[in-house]
Amino acid sequence: MDKKKNFVIIGGGACGPKAAARARRLDANANITMVQDEVYTSYAACGLPYFISGLVKSGNELMVRNAEAFKRISNVDVLIHTRADSIDRAAHQVHITNLLDGQTSALQYDKLVLATGANPIIPPIKGIDLQGVHVLKKIPDAEEIIALMTASVTHKAVIVGAGLIGMEMTESLVSKGFEVTIIEALDRLLAAVVDEEITDLIARHVKGKGVTLKLGQRIVGFEGEKGHVQRAVTDKESIEADVVIFAIGIRPNSKLAKEAGLEIGTFGDIVVDQHLRTNDPDIYAGGDCVANVNFITGQKVFVPLGSTANKQGHVIAANMTGGDQIWPGIVSTACVKIFDFNVGRTGLGEKEAVSAGYDVVTGLIPGLDLPEYYPGSKEVIIKLIVDAGTHRILGGQGTGSGEVIKRIDVLATGITMGMTVETLANLDLAYAPPYNSSLDILHHLANLVLNKMAGRIQGLKPKEVKEKLDKNGDFTLLDVRSRGEFKAARIESPQTRLLPQSRLRQEMQDLPKDKEIVMMCHRGVRAYQAACTLKGAGMKDVKFMEGSLACWCDDVVGEPPL
Amino acid sequence: MDKKKNFVIIGGGACGPKAAARARRLDANANITMVQDEVYTSYAACGLPYFISGLVKSGNELMVRNAEAFKRISNVDVLIHTRADSIDRAAHQVHITNLLDGQTSALQYDKLVLATGANPIIPPIKGIDLQGVHVLKKIPDAEEIIALMTASVTHKAVIVGAGLIGMEMTESLVSKGFEVTIIEALDRLLAAVVDEEITDLIARHVKGKGVTLKLGQRIVGFEGEKGHVQRAVTDKESIEADVVIFAIGIRPNSKLAKEAGLEIGTFGDIVVDQHLRTNDPDIYAGGDCVANVNFITGQKVFVPLGSTANKQGHVIAANMTGGDQIWPGIVSTACVKIFDFNVGRTGLGEKEAVSAGYDVVTGLIPGLDLPEYYPGSKEVIIKLIVDAGTHRILGGQGTGSGEVIKRIDVLATGITMGMTVETLANLDLAYAPPYNSSLDILHHLANLVLNKMAGRIQGLKPKEVKEKLDKNGDFTLLDVRSRGEFKAARIESPQTRLLPQSRLRQEMQDLPKDKEIVMMCHRGVRAYQAACTLKGAGMKDVKFMEGSLACWCDDVVGEPPL
Repeated sequence: MDKKKNFVIIGGGACGPKAAARARRLDANANITMVQDEVYTSYAACGLPYFISGLVKSGNELMVRNAEAFKRISNVDVLIHTRADSIDRAAHQVHITNLLDGQTSALQYDKLVLATGANPIIPPIKGIDLQGVHVLKKIPDAEEIIALMTASVTHKAVIVGAGLIGMEMTESLVSKGFEVTIIEALDRLLAAVVDEEITDLIARHVKGKGVTLKLGQRIVGFEGEKGHVQRAVTDKESIEADVVIFAIGIRPNSKLAKEAGLEIGTFGDIVVDQHLRTNDPDIYAGGDCVANVNFITGQKVFVPLGSTANKQGHVIAANMTGGDQIWPGIVSTACVKIFDFNVGRTGLGEKEAVSAGYDVVTGLIPGLDLPEYYPGSKEVIIKLIVDAGTHRILGGQGTGSGEVIKRIDVLATGITMGMTVETLANLDLAYAPPYNSSLDILHHLANLVLNKMAGRIQGLKPKEVKEKLDKNGDFTLLDVRSRGEFKAARIESPQTRLLPQSRLRQEMQDLPKDKEIVMMCHRGVRAYQAACTLKGAGMKDVKFMEGSLACWCDDVVGEPPL
Repeated sequence: MDKKKNFVIIGGGACGPKAAARARRLDANANITMVQDEVYTSYAACGLPYFISGLVKSGNELMVRNAEAFKRISNVDVLIHTRADSIDRAAHQVHITNLLDGQTSALQYDKLVLATGANPIIPPIKGIDLQGVHVLKKIPDAEEIIALMTASVTHKAVIVGAGLIGMEMTESLVSKGFEVTIIEALDRLLAAVVDEEITDLIARHVKGKGVTLKLGQRIVGFEGEKGHVQRAVTDKESIEADVVIFAIGIRPNSKLAKEAGLEIGTFGDIVVDQHLRTNDPDIYAGGDCVANVNFITGQKVFVPLGSTANKQGHVIAANMTGGDQIWPGIVSTACVKIFDFNVGRTGLGEKEAVSAGYDVVTGLIPGLDLPEYYPGSKEVIIKLIVDAGTHRILGGQGTGSGEVIKRIDVLATGITMGMTVETLANLDLAYAPPYNSSLDILHHLANLVLNKMAGRIQGLKPKEVKEKLDKNGDFTLLDVRSRGEFKAARIESPQTRLLPQSRLRQEMQDLPKDKEIVMMCHRGVRAYQAACTLKGAGMKDVKFMEGSLACWCDDVVGEPPL
């Protein structure tokens, strides 16, 4: 019989526990030790915003398995309250300190797993240490934030950073009655997650929930009294708040690895190969402390997610017990719930795709997630990003109160497999009225992009139409909705003209033949059809506004006198 | 300028209207005529069960566009109340009859589209013409069924045929207070849709809603008084009912095509090539009157769905206007809502896959569609079917009250693209607590199948365990749940033994080393882990029951004295 192997795993969040439990299933005899610097092990940190909002009643609900259960079920020794201080690669040892009694010792390893996670970025700005300014990373953070919220006098909160955590925390705080202001240095929300068209829709939704957005403002510091924060100070103004969530981003926790001489990447990540092995063949790394290859571009990206961490733990367990499993990389799928809006993305965003050198064609369609006649249908807005060279789908993203995430998962699967837009157009997705329309919005998107690529139609984004209007361009914005719809809400401009689709064929001869016409309607369907009609009648410069009024995030005039 | 083309389309359901509207967008000048034998055009026949249940308030809501709107918007002439009598291929003419005034005439075509749909199968059995016995195909059928239900005295209904329509109508009738009995000649529900494991779960659910199942009974006829049905008679018994929905299946309506000498397939379908062209190059066909190639097996299958019909209309429009678009075929995706259960399937079922010559491995996992800590999570049960030779995913199906259909759509996409189970295991699906667990049930399924293929674990289906128990086999059914769970509900047998997972490592030496042990728990997770533990301890004949109690459809003893 082989000598018993010693497996040591540093980090007890997601990747570590997964690696430990599976290593036991693959090797019944090894000594497996997991080192964790806090008391909690194997917990869903992603659930913390919902613990803070009260949807989840206690931090313990988020914990999958505690140290005692790990021993009992998987025969894994979990050293809680234990810090890993250094790695002696030559001696194959990890030096550790028990944080409760200060005792130090060393763990011998045959294979070592670094699942050290990531740390919130906390710049040394003025007042960052004031009470009331908090990051959210672990269960104790959430408990402290709950205490801060309970003690709040003003019920005014500031979120610094409009990324995934910032947006989740916005919802949590609003649900608890807080007046929330978001400070974001970039000029839009979720800039690293979704494109501008989607961001603008989310911003409109968030503002509708009473949230104040301070975009393009840089946080400078915090001011307070008696050690407690009272104001967040930006480069432009000062905002009152006695609860501040600081969420500008996280960075791989690669200190141990770096000090041990392991290779560190541009994100501060521990560099690993396709087996999730570091440049030391006896040391693996996974979870938030590593970067990933986006396998559309082959470029490394830092997208720290619990889902990836869990899968990587699984792969590491196989490889450290003598198996041969490949970690393929990611397509950068992400999603977040923001009030009533579901938000998702996968693959490349439009700008990323352009930067990566693709000849990009996009499509933007709002629509209902169920047949209009079926009760409970809700709006979804999806954007598709395609490479005109290969017709391959590069990315997709969307938002709305309807079923966005199913479409994102379909696109993530297709992108992973190199699907073309032709295949998407005829994809055999599940159809029955309680679940979908006979054609999914993805089918419509694929057809729209195919029509654009074939030169059959030219689309303009709402933002592009807005720019044309702002420049007072010489074109007609032809609204083909009904008179009633037009009356209820319309884009007011000198260029705007109403000609309902029902009268288009009779009256189109009155339209200027040699002038640019941009068609619009409610969601873009009628505008598209009408544009085809005008093109068929020989008009040359006809476009349609993709998404039309449903995706229009600028001013609209309602109930005008007609 | 080219001479104006004449396009004639026979059939105004789904494929026909789609072809007509797009043909207009692609050819502004053609004369386009659509022939429809009823007054309704372009309507969602799939919504009829929801019109009957009252969820949809009127038949008109199901109609996308009437004849007048077709003319106005798409400049398509729709001849309603018009029957196509014959096709003169040599003369390129369709002979038609106006059903209101009996006038006959002929339409000249350059390209002809047959979108003649399918007809319900109505065998000439005794009493089939009695009032109260009805099929469901068109809006007038639904209106007549509603009238029958309103006039019902007994509020007892019989559904003949447990396919998709039969099951949808079961829900509609129960929702209207009817006592429903389903008569099905095969020994299970939805036999053409899902495998036995899924069927059994659905049957349990349906019975729980008060529906009576008469499986393995063949309908022989109907008996009544004063011309109205009062009893359905099977080969075994007679069942009282004054409303009968006859839904044993549909058959392509290919009479016109056949009489015109076009090639007809084994399903009675109009044979078409990849361009949806019949053996006459000027005649296309699409929708329910054609069969499709399942592109996993390359075999022809008859899966008539509105989704496929719409996509085919789109393809036909391109090809008949001079384009070149390929119809790739289907992966036989289907879904249906049955009370609180969502049901979906895609690809091949297990038996189909075995028949097609694959070396089949399956996995069955019940689980929650959201993290357990997140409110509102619901149960889903998914089965995965994989080819052990290539590791390609062949099929997937599932049911449960949770989000089944998203998983089916992901699998449909993966199967279309030839995805392997390795890729599925690491697929970058969207993760955030409001949408999913960090690992999707599909990831777990992929890992289970990989572990089974690698010989790391052996799974048994609940039915296989039941058979072993029925044979009084010499094995131990080891339940590793807690004592409390065991007390609440358990499989009672001489083989059953309780050993909670928390005590397994301490007490496993007491288990027989040389006897077969089948592990079970609630959903199979602990049983799987425990089986790995026992195998690790050197026990040779250890298996686990996939799906365990959650998928057990036979007797369970609750609250026994312990």
